[in-house]
Amino acid sequence: MKWIFCFLIGVIVGLLGFFNNLAVENIAGIKFVVTSNLMLARKYTMAFLVFASSNFGLTLFASLITAFIAPEAAGSGIPEVKAYLNGVDAPEIFSLRTLLIKIVGSICAVSSSLNIGKAGPMVHTGAIVATLIGQGGSNKFRLPWKWLRVFDNDRDRRDLVTCGSAAGIAAAFRAPVGGLLFALEELASWWRSALLWRAFFTTAVVAIVLRALIDVCMRGECGLFGKGGLIMFDVTSANISYHLKDVPPVLLLGVIGGIVGSSYNLLLNKILRIYNMINEKGITYKIILACSISIFTSCLLFGLPWLAYCRPCPSDSSEPCPTIGRSGNYKKFQCQPGHYNDLASLFFNTNDDAIKNLFSKDTDSEFHLASMFIFFVTCYFLSIFSYGIVAPAGLFVPVIVTGAAYGRFVGMLVGSNSNLNHGLFAVLGSASLLGGTMRTTVSLCVIILELTNNLLLLPLSMLVLLISKTVADAFNGNIYDLIVASKGLPYLESHTEPYMRQLTVGDVVTGPLRIFHGIEKVSNIVHILKTTRHNGFPVVDEPPLSVSPVLYGLILRAHLITLLKMKVFLRNPAPVGSDASTQFSADDFSKKGFGHGDQIEDVDLSEEEMEMFIDLHPFTNTSPYTVLETMSLAKALVLFRQVGLRHLLVIPKTSDRVPVVGILTRHDFMPEHILNLYPDMVTGRWKRLRFQFPQSRKLI
Amino acid sequence: MKWIFCFLIGVIVGLLGFFNNLAVENIAGIKFVVTSNLMLARKYTMAFLVFASSNFGLTLFASLITAFIAPEAAGSGIPEVKAYLNGVDAPEIFSLRTLLIKIVGSICAVSSSLNIGKAGPMVHTGAIVATLIGQGGSNKFRLPWKWLRVFDNDRDRRDLVTCGSAAGIAAAFRAPVGGLLFALEELASWWRSALLWRAFFTTAVVAIVLRALIDVCMRGECGLFGKGGLIMFDVTSANISYHLKDVPPVLLLGVIGGIVGSSYNLLLNKILRIYNMINEKGITYKIILACSISIFTSCLLFGLPWLAYCRPCPSDSSEPCPTIGRSGNYKKFQCQPGHYNDLASLFFNTNDDAIKNLFSKDTDSEFHLASMFIFFVTCYFLSIFSYGIVAPAGLFVPVIVTGAAYGRFVGMLVGSNSNLNHGLFAVLGSASLLGGTMRTTVSLCVIILELTNNLLLLPLSMLVLLISKTVADAFNGNIYDLIVASKGLPYLESHTEPYMRQLTVGDVVTGPLRIFHGIEKVSNIVHILKTTRHNGFPVVDEPPLSVSPVLYGLILRAHLITLLKMKVFLRNPAPVGSDASTQFSADDFSKKGFGHGDQIEDVDLSEEEMEMFIDLHPFTNTSPYTVLETMSLAKALVLFRQVGLRHLLVIPKTSDRVPVVGILTRHDFMPEHILNLYPDMVTGRWKRLRFQFPQSRKLI
Repeated sequence: MKWIFCFLIGVIVGLLGFFNNLAVENIAGIKFVVTSNLMLARKYTMAFLVFASSNFGLTLFASLITAFIAPEAAGSGIPEVKAYLNGVDAPEIFSLRTLLIKIVGSICAVSSSLNIGKAGPMVHTGAIVATLIGQGGSNKFRLPWKWLRVFDNDRDRRDLVTCGSAAGIAAAFRAPVGGLLFALEELASWWRSALLWRAFFTTAVVAIVLRALIDVCMRGECGLFGKGGLIMFDVTSANISYHLKDVPPVLLLGVIGGIVGSSYNLLLNKILRIYNMINEKGITYKIILACSISIFTSCLLFGLPWLAYCRPCPSDSSEPCPTIGRSGNYKKFQCQPGHYNDLASLFFNTNDDAIKNLFSKDTDSEFHLASMFIFFVTCYFLSIFSYGIVAPAGLFVPVIVTGAAYGRFVGMLVGSNSNLNHGLFAVLGSASLLGGTMRTTVSLCVIILELTNNLLLLPLSMLVLLISKTVADAFNGNIYDLIVASKGLPYLESHTEPYMRQLTVGDVVTGPLRIFHGIEKVSNIVHILKTTRHNGFPVVDEPPLSVSPVLYGLILRAHLITLLKMKVFLRNPAPVGSDASTQFSADDFSKKGFGHGDQIEDVDLSEEEMEMFIDLHPFTNTSPYTVLETMSLAKALVLFRQVGLRHLLVIPKTSDRVPVVGILTRHDFMPEHILNLYPDMVTGRWKRLRFQFPQSRKLI
Repeated sequence: MKWIFCFLIGVIVGLLGFFNNLAVENIAGIKFVVTSNLMLARKYTMAFLVFASSNFGLTLFASLITAFIAPEAAGSGIPEVKAYLNGVDAPEIFSLRTLLIKIVGSICAVSSSLNIGKAGPMVHTGAIVATLIGQGGSNKFRLPWKWLRVFDNDRDRRDLVTCGSAAGIAAAFRAPVGGLLFALEELASWWRSALLWRAFFTTAVVAIVLRALIDVCMRGECGLFGKGGLIMFDVTSANISYHLKDVPPVLLLGVIGGIVGSSYNLLLNKILRIYNMINEKGITYKIILACSISIFTSCLLFGLPWLAYCRPCPSDSSEPCPTIGRSGNYKKFQCQPGHYNDLASLFFNTNDDAIKNLFSKDTDSEFHLASMFIFFVTCYFLSIFSYGIVAPAGLFVPVIVTGAAYGRFVGMLVGSNSNLNHGLFAVLGSASLLGGTMRTTVSLCVIILELTNNLLLLPLSMLVLLISKTVADAFNGNIYDLIVASKGLPYLESHTEPYMRQLTVGDVVTGPLRIFHGIEKVSNIVHILKTTRHNGFPVVDEPPLSVSPVLYGLILRAHLITLLKMKVFLRNPAPVGSDASTQFSADDFSKKGFGHGDQIEDVDLSEEEMEMFIDLHPFTNTSPYTVLETMSLAKALVLFRQVGLRHLLVIPKTSDRVPVVGILTRHDFMPEHILNLYPDMVTGRWKRLRFQFPQSRKLI
């Protein structure tokens, strides 16, 4: 059953990824062909108007549908998926509506020449597809077949979402192994070997679907998409040889890449905060922001190539020069016949084609140093300013473009002191900037390997990634973690902070504890459910049901509401025996997909019913995880995180009191919560782990 | 600090791996060159004698040193590393002596043309190097610098061993990413992102060291090793194209590969049981077994090529034919000038060269169908019979050879019905057989990718691996798990068996529980330590120290023995306060490397001392993990396994008894233990997961 689901996820995500690429290449392609033809006819103003207005229209459409129909579809989606896999349920993140907007919005936004990527939205798309398949349709249009809904528990859903997001990366970059590793390294909070295998199956299906579709494209039926091909940026060269003297420039590349990457994260985080303030003012402001970014981008993309000199075509070029039509490195732009504009071949192109140009070998003399610098700086800032708009937008591709420009720029500076050609420098530059922002290592290494099909480059790209990650980690965190934190999602880290070892769980348990008795009055239940927001409650048996107060187990809010709705009430407080649960099917208690479940406010009860009782015993989880109140907080966190809990009962050490002291939830382990209780813990060693910039903090 | 250690591990394992390869290629190379020269001179008997006696000598030497000096070095080592990473401490597995024997023995055994591999021994070597570095030298020759011994806890050691074994595979196959993934997928029981990163760093160092050493070989200074090269079996071909019609033969390859692989596991397991019986009879039997396998192998390798017809050399061959000297596909063997023997070019070669021949493209007509079948069958049985001998022996390379022969055989049968050449079939055949025996997916896929440098083959090899693993899993388990089980190591599986959900922890806790009081009499401690084999004891405070009996914590046997040796005794049973522990350094209580620690029998105490007391409070772990006795066994196992515990305290639900019911250890979770207590649990569903072969069981 799970395998069939994984197969379906693989097929659907593979198809979506393919058609996503196809649509982007064709929409953007037609736009560029029309504009280029106008340029050839020397109608420059007209060309700019067509270019800018089509970009504007596409961006407007993407932001309108996102803002009005599914605001959850904005942005990359990777932070949300990461938080979900950590155990944070955010409503509406995985709905059918979000899926549709994400796909359409991403195609439009990427086609509109904004400097944003499609990988993040593909991950989110994959995750939504997995969720919808797992719950047998959306909440509203649910399939009637009950047997499809076998995944009504959190773990299986998380596994499916992991598979789906792995498939998303696999489809976006045609990198099955890299996608799998990215899902495991960056997204998943819990790994299991079985999960690894199932995710591998999913990405294998994606790879095979893509491979089959390429056969279709080979026959030239994909329009401007061309031949597709399984490898995106093929830089195979028969024999790359590099020696020890090539290592220092590569080290330098890694160090600077780490610094540039961490400053990227820093700036992006600041810009996102500013954008959030703007976006909170209302939908109109969101749309205006998106549109102004689009106009700004169009002006830059069209305007900056005019800065570059026209250069004569090389006589020994294997490609037609200047390029007429869609593909090809040598854009004519405003130049004379026989000349080409090197900046235009980067700017006036889709991001994919720009990367292809930057990665290509035997093009060392094609680009000018100043052009490369302009391109790098523009990409760097454009991608930072474009991410936060209200449209589906990824970060992966912009970082690859920026890194490639940076790497090629460094390669040009090093010049003939290295055996590596500039295309390889571009690949390594991408690796270093990716390492500096995303901070994953193995998965990026494999993604770059699969993107470029160059195994001999592996030792160098491993080196670059390690250095840039190490350097960048000294300054700030992973870009996705920063976004998760800025969204205020309670993400549970896997490591424990040192001060947690000095605290016991008894120190952080707060608030008045609400306890239910084994047989509880209906009015009590309704009152407690209405006055608290807790999702789990301990059930305690007291005399006469037992000799002394005994912890019976844990009952969930959702189950209590179900019981109230089903009105399984008793007139007298007497136990009903274990056969009471047989009148319910497991389906009544299963988790009802995403979004808000039933609310206590929806339950209508008469006065008479309020005075009746419920026997909670058959519906209580009798094996909750427990810790003693003297347990170290750090150890309790390890348990909470490793086992993937939502509630952890704290029981007293001595037996002369109530049998449960409190409940720990995710929020009790958040550093903000703990430091709020014990502000003097913010001292000493653990703060020294990150460099502080008191000066820059004050300025910004 | 950890990074420096990982760097050292990477450098040392990289160097060891390189010199291992170098030594094997040179020793085996000289042997083959001498024998071939004799063959050219038509001195066949002489040639056989030289060949057989050199093989015999090398095997004898390898088994002598293994049997007498370090019997732990026999076999692959992967099962031991896997068990260690699961938490099973086996003595002497990671000692300097084992390391030396493992390296020398592996070189001799592989050079002696036995059908065994070097990957498993390299993993073990890497793990030992990591352990020795982590504990700052061997137990006997420990380095004097105390600051080197910073890893005196289990988790850090496990992490280092994981890095070391990843480096081992990386060095053996020159596959850094594949090695890392193999360590994570197959060996490690606990993963963390930080560990992933450190292991990646280690394998990156290995890759860079190997890359640097290849520069040396390029200058021709490696003797018969040739140019080395970072990619072992390069099968890059400019454009592999395959279409839908190539999929059915590949599916078939996967299905049969799965069946062949699972039968391989089954047979190997049977043979190992027989060998174990022989080996238990004494060292002489062990040596005789190893030597007879060597003679048998020599006879087969020298004899079988005579069965093949001599074939005329192809006129358009790019290589010299017949081959004179070491490398090259066309072995002359007994043939006329201008002819070659195709079987000899497989048998009469090192395994690496045989794989290279089988994987090579444009050699579709080089081998005969019957030759390939003979080679496949011989390899299959030889590798099964060779593994269990008393010498370091891996399984990876033999499975690759066998699989390559099988794949090429299938490729020949399919013939012109496929676009794939026979070399690619050989690669896919290796993949299918590896999937059928090792049962890992992602890591094998990446290892094959890195071995062959052919990214376009990735979708097909993913498909083949998935199918063969699925098919083989229906029959039996992973080869390493079978070996772990046959060695009787208490390996803790990550999944829970269904019957565990029906039991509570209270049902499986057995044996009389030994409890210490907070202030305990020395004679009691000595008595309990001498009469039990437990490694952890609960410490309970009773009146007058507390109002009622209270669980104070858990104390370890090793710490008790240290306390007894240090003689920190009190004349009166009064608490000493928390400053008592200041007279000890943390080093006194740290784990003393591998092997047996201090024994209780070593502690000498006078009569007077026996009557004194120890205050255990300062030395007790006050935050042990606990479960209520009504906790489901399955949930307790999840906790035990996920958090990586050695002891789990069971506390009572009601408070009117002793505050601790028992201690769960690894052995209490073993299915054998539970099914021994509840034999009627062996029914119904969970047994149906594996097919049963009642017939074959009876026959064997």
